[in-house]
Amino acid sequence: MTAASPVLLALDLLGTFAFALNGALTALRVARLDVVGVVTLGVITALGGGIIRDVLLDVPPVTFNDWRYLAVAAAGGLIAFVSGRGLDRLSAPITVLDAAGLSLFAVTGAGRALELGLGPAQAVVLGAVTGVGGGTLRDVLVRQVPSVLSSGLYAVPALVGATATVVATALDAEGPGTAAGAAALCFLIRMVGVRYDLHAPLPSRAPGPDEEGRD
Amino acid sequence: MTAASPVLLALDLLGTFAFALNGALTALRVARLDVVGVVTLGVITALGGGIIRDVLLDVPPVTFNDWRYLAVAAAGGLIAFVSGRGLDRLSAPITVLDAAGLSLFAVTGAGRALELGLGPAQAVVLGAVTGVGGGTLRDVLVRQVPSVLSSGLYAVPALVGATATVVATALDAEGPGTAAGAAALCFLIRMVGVRYDLHAPLPSRAPGPDEEGRD
Amino acid sequence: MTAASPVLLALDLLGTFAFALNGALTALRVARLDVVGVVTLGVITALGGGIIRDVLLDVPPVTFNDWRYLAVAAAGGLIAFVSGRGLDRLSAPITVLDAAGLSLFAVTGAGRALELGLGPAQAVVLGAVTGVGGGTLRDVLVRQVPSVLSSGLYAVPALVGATATVVATALDAEGPGTAAGAAALCFLIRMVGVRYDLHAPLPSRAPGPDEEGRD
Repeated sequence: MTAASPVLLALDLLGTFAFALNGALTALRVARLDVVGVVTLGVITALGGGIIRDVLLDVPPVTFNDWRYLAVAAAGGLIAFVSGRGLDRLSAPITVLDAAGLSLFAVTGAGRALELGLGPAQAVVLGAVTGVGGGTLRDVLVRQVPSVLSSGLYAVPALVGATATVVATALDAEGPGTAAGAAALCFLIRMVGVRYDLHAPLPSRAPGPDEEGRD
Repeated sequence: MTAASPVLLALDLLGTFAFALNGALTALRVARLDVVGVVTLGVITALGGGIIRDVLLDVPPVTFNDWRYLAVAAAGGLIAFVSGRGLDRLSAPITVLDAAGLSLFAVTGAGRALELGLGPAQAVVLGAVTGVGGGTLRDVLVRQVPSVLSSGLYAVPALVGATATVVATALDAEGPGTAAGAAALCFLIRMVGVRYDLHAPLPSRAPGPDEEGRD
Repeated sequence: MTAASPVLLALDLLGTFAFALNGALTALRVARLDVVGVVTLGVITALGGGIIRDVLLDVPPVTFNDWRYLAVAAAGGLIAFVSGRGLDRLSAPITVLDAAGLSLFAVTGAGRALELGLGPAQAVVLGAVTGVGGGTLRDVLVRQVPSVLSSGLYAVPALVGATATVVATALDAEGPGTAAGAAALCFLIRMVGVRYDLHAPLPSRAPGPDEEGRD
């Protein structure tokens, strides 16, 4: 396994922490789970994107080679369990933490793909997959339609953040500042999208779900 | 990675295109998604079967080594988004495209497994998994019971198509015509099953879902 | 691939059989599926945990290198299809078989991780993931909230069984008796938890699902 650069590692652990808090708070909101269930959903949300990324890269998932990911994810889940039950409304922190994880993972996923020698288009796609992967597993497990399908501007900011990372690397301008900037750009687009309920073009009319069976 | 034969590649890209159209039309029918959500579901449906196949083979998913798959999948999703909203009824094309993808992937999945040196039984299973994999991911993401569980004659034609491929290869009769024939056989069985609502034997009586919790 | 020890192999096949029965009976209870759907859910439940384990270990999934797993899983599914439709109530056997599979896979998953050279903490996590993995796929496919999230004491006994395995190996006390003991310990905790409806600490109050959208 290629050793990740310190910048990627730091941003990756930060994203892991944000998604662990997010997943655990989602568990608190969606169902009355015990502490193990809450922490489990936090850990899956936190590690899911990176695991999908590494499976697609066909390298050993970094989670099982670097204990820090698991420790950060479990700590985030526990902290959310303890603090979350005191919060009156969980929607706002859940949304912000999800956007933070999305942004950080889009950047680190693209960066890791480049480190492993993938081409620019593949790095962009893999960055976006890393960003949306953990949240998609989370949504499937709690039986919600995944944000990446239902939610305005979710994949788009991830693609933008990953593209910014790839372009910066092509220009030899990669570094902590660039990575943080790319993540901030993704975060901003996502939060503006949430605030103003923006979305990509819709179909001109929604065909009603017709009642015939699918098969 | 073993280079795929030109025949396998062509059929594989055709199956990718069929499933991309199918997934995107499903997205249009099931929910009012924006263009990104529609294309995303198309791409996941199109690439899902091959990714699961390559993960089970423990080789790098071909999707990320060959940009043509991603391009074909994205193009299919976009075409379906543009054309699908003009369609009055989506059920028929969705069913036909799903059967086409199922058939093509059952054949190419079995062929790829044989190319990589797996035994005949494993190649049959892997062909069927490739055929049903993308549609299963699609159904989980839009919260439907997967076709492979609920739908009459879905896994069976995939197993038949994969078996025909394995037998033809054992008889040294593989080639474009044989592959197309095996896919056509699978497609025919599936469509006959849909038309006449055929299914494998049912339990003699359906035990009602009893109300006790599962645990 | 490292050859598994005979003890691990025997326990692994036993767990495969238990989960195949469990998954197929779940299919009978949850929906009126035909024989192919019932066997398919049995096979996925039986093989899912080991496949997730091997994907996380980045080794070829043993299922596709050792036909015995597939044969045992398919046989279990068929037996459950034939015998299950005569059963009046399926809840009790489903619960017991699930606990048996959970226990056996937690032990064999941890053992396999140790054989492949992973550290103790990772072996514990991987054992638990192996134990809960197949049932989680099963629950997602039939659209139930996964037991690992919803159910009292489900991950906890798996973690205990995996930890016992790791400790025994560290003390050079591994062997058939120890492995069976660790599995029995896990099974006992799980069944006591089911019987008395035990669970880990809950949040002090359940925040109602607030009505704002997630994004």
